[in-house]
Amino acid sequence: MNAPVSHCALRLDPAIRDDARRRLLSVKGHVEGILRMLETESVYCVDVLKQIKAVDGALNKVGELVLRCHLRNHVVTAHERGDEEVIVAELMEVLKYR
Amino acid sequence: MNAPVSHCALRLDPAIRDDARRRLLSVKGHVEGILRMLETESVYCVDVLKQIKAVDGALNKVGELVLRCHLRNHVVTAHERGDEEVIVAELMEVLKYR
Amino acid sequence: MNAPVSHCALRLDPAIRDDARRRLLSVKGHVEGILRMLETESVYCVDVLKQIKAVDGALNKVGELVLRCHLRNHVVTAHERGDEEVIVAELMEVLKYR
Amino acid sequence: MNAPVSHCALRLDPAIRDDARRRLLSVKGHVEGILRMLETESVYCVDVLKQIKAVDGALNKVGELVLRCHLRNHVVTAHERGDEEVIVAELMEVLKYR
Repeated sequence: MNAPVSHCALRLDPAIRDDARRRLLSVKGHVEGILRMLETESVYCVDVLKQIKAVDGALNKVGELVLRCHLRNHVVTAHERGDEEVIVAELMEVLKYR
Repeated sequence: MNAPVSHCALRLDPAIRDDARRRLLSVKGHVEGILRMLETESVYCVDVLKQIKAVDGALNKVGELVLRCHLRNHVVTAHERGDEEVIVAELMEVLKYR
Repeated sequence: MNAPVSHCALRLDPAIRDDARRRLLSVKGHVEGILRMLETESVYCVDVLKQIKAVDGALNKVGELVLRCHLRNHVVTAHERGDEEVIVAELMEVLKYR
Repeated sequence: MNAPVSHCALRLDPAIRDDARRRLLSVKGHVEGILRMLETESVYCVDVLKQIKAVDGALNKVGELVLRCHLRNHVVTAHERGDEEVIVAELMEVLKYR
């Protein structure tokens, strides 16, 4: 159980993958909505800022789901696999400025 | 000069509007890229997190452009127009947790 | 009224200054509390992280108060004073990564 | 090795504890500096905002150190100890809005 396992074996959980896909499709739709807003000459800055903030929130929600799944499935078992150095380094990189 | 002006008169600058559109098209393309990643069964959580972070950065860049334009064109003149109460309140709302 | 005014004339509102002072005294006390926690050998990482997060929230609250006051008293009148270039530039700098 | 271990046994690494203490002492000094600034009647809002941002950055740096240490010493071994549920839940809580 302590033999290092190839990183390729660490896969995002299928159920979370489906959920993330659904949410990102909605994010994409939301971005298309902002693009349509921006075709209107009279669009107001703050309305654009509000929409960007909403998309940002939805995006962070996807990130949260994937992060929790990664912690649960791969990070808590890293010592057993022997790849904890890589796991911690890449996690810290991804969490920066979050 | 102190007569309140309809909010509808406050428009996002056309050049910034074009720039924001270009950038959001690229954000949309990026989101589609993540959606394709998520179709792969062996996709690795951290690779998804990295892409989400990149999209988030691009989105914040658009927000920054629009915000700067709003400050320059509408906020610094709010007292002259007489709508400073609304301008400050909606700006604080949009800046929350940014 | 359009003559540029020295930046030195832009002062933080006294009431907000008092409020900020009270809140920062509490932030200081909170930091001292974390320092005491860190003298205990058995302190748990997550308890420290929770306290840091709480201080961060309190600090952001002070920033929010000062920002709102700045917008209300100095930013919305910048065009009248003629210093809008500086006002917008320094505001964007301070808002970065917030 | 799979027997659940009391949470009390999870301690912040002494070297990191010392580093965090040094940094928090400096954060405390910085907050005291802002408090002195706020005694000056002519203090300018943006100067306060800049200092708050600097303290925030220093505080996040401490959080980063403690987080990395926690990941390395406690999270990657959570499955072996059998407390992964708690470890993941409390970590997600602390990372929220970071």
